[in-house]
Amino acid sequence: MASSGMSLVPTARTEDVLEQLPISRTTEYAKGRVIYGPDNPSNYVYLVVSGKVTTSRTAADGTQVLLEIILPDEIFGESSFLNMPHRPERAIALESSKVMKWAVSDFEDLVSKRPRLSVALLQIFAQRNADSASRIESFATDNIEQRLARSLLHFSARLGTVEAGGAEHMMPFTHLFLSQYIGTTREIVTQHMNRLRNRGFISYSRLGIQLYRENLTAVLEAGPSPSTAHQKSQGSIYENQT
Amino acid sequence: MASSGMSLVPTARTEDVLEQLPISRTTEYAKGRVIYGPDNPSNYVYLVVSGKVTTSRTAADGTQVLLEIILPDEIFGESSFLNMPHRPERAIALESSKVMKWAVSDFEDLVSKRPRLSVALLQIFAQRNADSASRIESFATDNIEQRLARSLLHFSARLGTVEAGGAEHMMPFTHLFLSQYIGTTREIVTQHMNRLRNRGFISYSRLGIQLYRENLTAVLEAGPSPSTAHQKSQGSIYENQT
Repeated sequence: MASSGMSLVPTARTEDVLEQLPISRTTEYAKGRVIYGPDNPSNYVYLVVSGKVTTSRTAADGTQVLLEIILPDEIFGESSFLNMPHRPERAIALESSKVMKWAVSDFEDLVSKRPRLSVALLQIFAQRNADSASRIESFATDNIEQRLARSLLHFSARLGTVEAGGAEHMMPFTHLFLSQYIGTTREIVTQHMNRLRNRGFISYSRLGIQLYRENLTAVLEAGPSPSTAHQKSQGSIYENQT
Repeated sequence: MASSGMSLVPTARTEDVLEQLPISRTTEYAKGRVIYGPDNPSNYVYLVVSGKVTTSRTAADGTQVLLEIILPDEIFGESSFLNMPHRPERAIALESSKVMKWAVSDFEDLVSKRPRLSVALLQIFAQRNADSASRIESFATDNIEQRLARSLLHFSARLGTVEAGGAEHMMPFTHLFLSQYIGTTREIVTQHMNRLRNRGFISYSRLGIQLYRENLTAVLEAGPSPSTAHQKSQGSIYENQT
């Protein structure tokens, strides 16, 4: 992965959280280690200090669905606020990672002393909701190629660096990994990655994925998925059907 | 819509919020009126006092994507915590509704006086995130019939009432409305609604939708979508591709 260049998205909102959260002990997880999951539910909210963590769910058929890649200075594990008996979410170290954690039961005390922590956490949770809503919109209206293009743009904005020529460079995600984010098979991702490469929109190797933001953005503007193409002409949702 | 019977989901978590939020002026919106949207962004968090409100987004191709139906005693508009220049979300009164609102800028003051309000809001935001993650999982792994069955179960758990014979009854959603939630066309929803009706799993008319939870749950267990059927046998996401 490229270590030089400018990060594309400053994590402005988490700065308040970092200032406001007390220091906690750091735990290290080796690549591939489970931090929490359905079999070992957590009662903590976590912060990535270094490395990268994935959050995911396992569907009823065993398929892994990738929720997000959590980067340094970002929070994860907020579902432990719910104290549900069944916790479908899993967090795994995508690479060797260090995390801090705080017990959910301590938060009432923490936020009463630090109202800015509270507002900063509400902003982070609201941002994650907005990201999920955007992804639901993509699932509901994009075809697979558009979903793939949008996912590459999303990961590059979060993880990538801009190179001298204007291309963005990020780590070498596997096609399986991408398929678990966009909800299709590895084979279909490979087919579309090849197609995007042949059109000169991306390049990839063992060293990473390079993409050209303007070209990939054009893929998103190429029109709606065939399955939703005639949805626009439909009437009001307030009419009745029988 | 049925007015008798037992509600299926108690809104336990919002009780803290209702206790902790100060009373605010109530505003009434007629059916179909926009509460906020991209053209009139809001800096408020809202509470439904009576009626029902939908939150939705408009995709680039003009397709409406339904996010959620917000019920009495529930919060919406949390994306105004983000203060983004572009606000894609829209809130519309699904029926004549009364709402209260609080300026986001007042929340730092509110939560500093009321730490329980803060924790209650974090729980509500975390619950919405968990619901979105569940919906992303459905989009990524379910076929259309399963997505429809899951959506009917979701809405019935939120809005429905249990009748004497064990069937659940809810308001008469249009097929267009359902199509905007599951991300397909009205025609395809009609086709699957007919199929579910012919199998005796649901019935519907101008008066409402009746469903049989056990039967619809069986649809969800009928196996994975063809597009993801061979995803289970794939290897680790940590391997490299070239």
